[in-house]
Amino acid sequence: MIRPVLFDYFRSSASYRVRIALALKGVDHDRVEVNLLEGGQREDSYRARNPQALVPMLEVDGRRIVQSLAIIQWLDRTYPDPPLVPTDPFDQAHVQALALAIACDIHPLNNLRVLKHLAGPLGAPQEVRDEWYRHWVKEGLAALEATAAERSGRFLFGDSPTLADICLVPQMFNARRFAVPLEPYPLLVRVDAEASRHEAFASAHPDRFQP
Amino acid sequence: MIRPVLFDYFRSSASYRVRIALALKGVDHDRVEVNLLEGGQREDSYRARNPQALVPMLEVDGRRIVQSLAIIQWLDRTYPDPPLVPTDPFDQAHVQALALAIACDIHPLNNLRVLKHLAGPLGAPQEVRDEWYRHWVKEGLAALEATAAERSGRFLFGDSPTLADICLVPQMFNARRFAVPLEPYPLLVRVDAEASRHEAFASAHPDRFQP
Repeated sequence: MIRPVLFDYFRSSASYRVRIALALKGVDHDRVEVNLLEGGQREDSYRARNPQALVPMLEVDGRRIVQSLAIIQWLDRTYPDPPLVPTDPFDQAHVQALALAIACDIHPLNNLRVLKHLAGPLGAPQEVRDEWYRHWVKEGLAALEATAAERSGRFLFGDSPTLADICLVPQMFNARRFAVPLEPYPLLVRVDAEASRHEAFASAHPDRFQP
Repeated sequence: MIRPVLFDYFRSSASYRVRIALALKGVDHDRVEVNLLEGGQREDSYRARNPQALVPMLEVDGRRIVQSLAIIQWLDRTYPDPPLVPTDPFDQAHVQALALAIACDIHPLNNLRVLKHLAGPLGAPQEVRDEWYRHWVKEGLAALEATAAERSGRFLFGDSPTLADICLVPQMFNARRFAVPLEPYPLLVRVDAEASRHEAFASAHPDRFQP
């Protein structure tokens, strides 16, 4: 197989998820930085490849995969070891629900294009935008903490990292950037700390990729 | 297997997706209406079952699955015929990316809790909220139209309904409710019309479940 190319932005949490998955699987790849703050995702050369004008995108042998969760599922099928979701259908649905609680119910409300839209067309001042950000993080993390509680181990589900942890760690990084108090979520804090000690998670941290 | 119970709200588009999937698979099930407008999802009896306080939820033999895409994937594994995603890993990633472009990049910005938050804490008047709604639908549908173009058939991918169409139809229903002009998306309009003639899609329409 040809070496995959990740179109990435160091601080995008969807990109960060894919970097973790690539590291967990040990997939050698190249990396192209798409600077979201400078609008790199809207340049013609990028949009021609990905009309969604979002990162991440994985290019493999001329084929392109977009949407972080679709990329990670493709990686999991293509490089099965270690598996990122459990085999049992109920367990698998549980892990996916944890991941989707972040990927659908927290992150889309707080990404850069939404914050820019609140600032621009809606004219919301900084403190209103920060409060918006924190509101959805708090609501989402509280739901996640409760949903994960019953079946967590060292990680959100059991004792090995799964797709759920891959989504958790970038979300916790974001929560800290926006100074969301994390005391109400002891399970999430504990799992995030556990995962952060894992070399694959550490190697994908945004600080390692800051231009 | 015990008969599944769908916790549903007639106008929730995430619920509507699951109704379509159940109908495509021909799964007999019971249905409990959770009235989101009246806050049914935040009542203790519901929250004890689903701390995320969202619909849909599928209860099967005392086990609960939340998040529409996790439920649909569980249904697809448990009732494999007809399949809702293609087998080839690249094709599967493409269909999932189309679905996620709706489920992550359009719908979360426009659901009821977000519109209520814009109205309440942000004090955004009706016309600002409507413009917000339309902005994300337009941006998302344009990206979806372009992403789907290369590999569409009668449906968004090929000639049979997939997870992507299951997400498209409720999103188009929402777009019409908010009077988003659909002329710029001829492919999506054509596929939506095709799907709407399909009995499984028609049987899941919100009008059939209006209390």
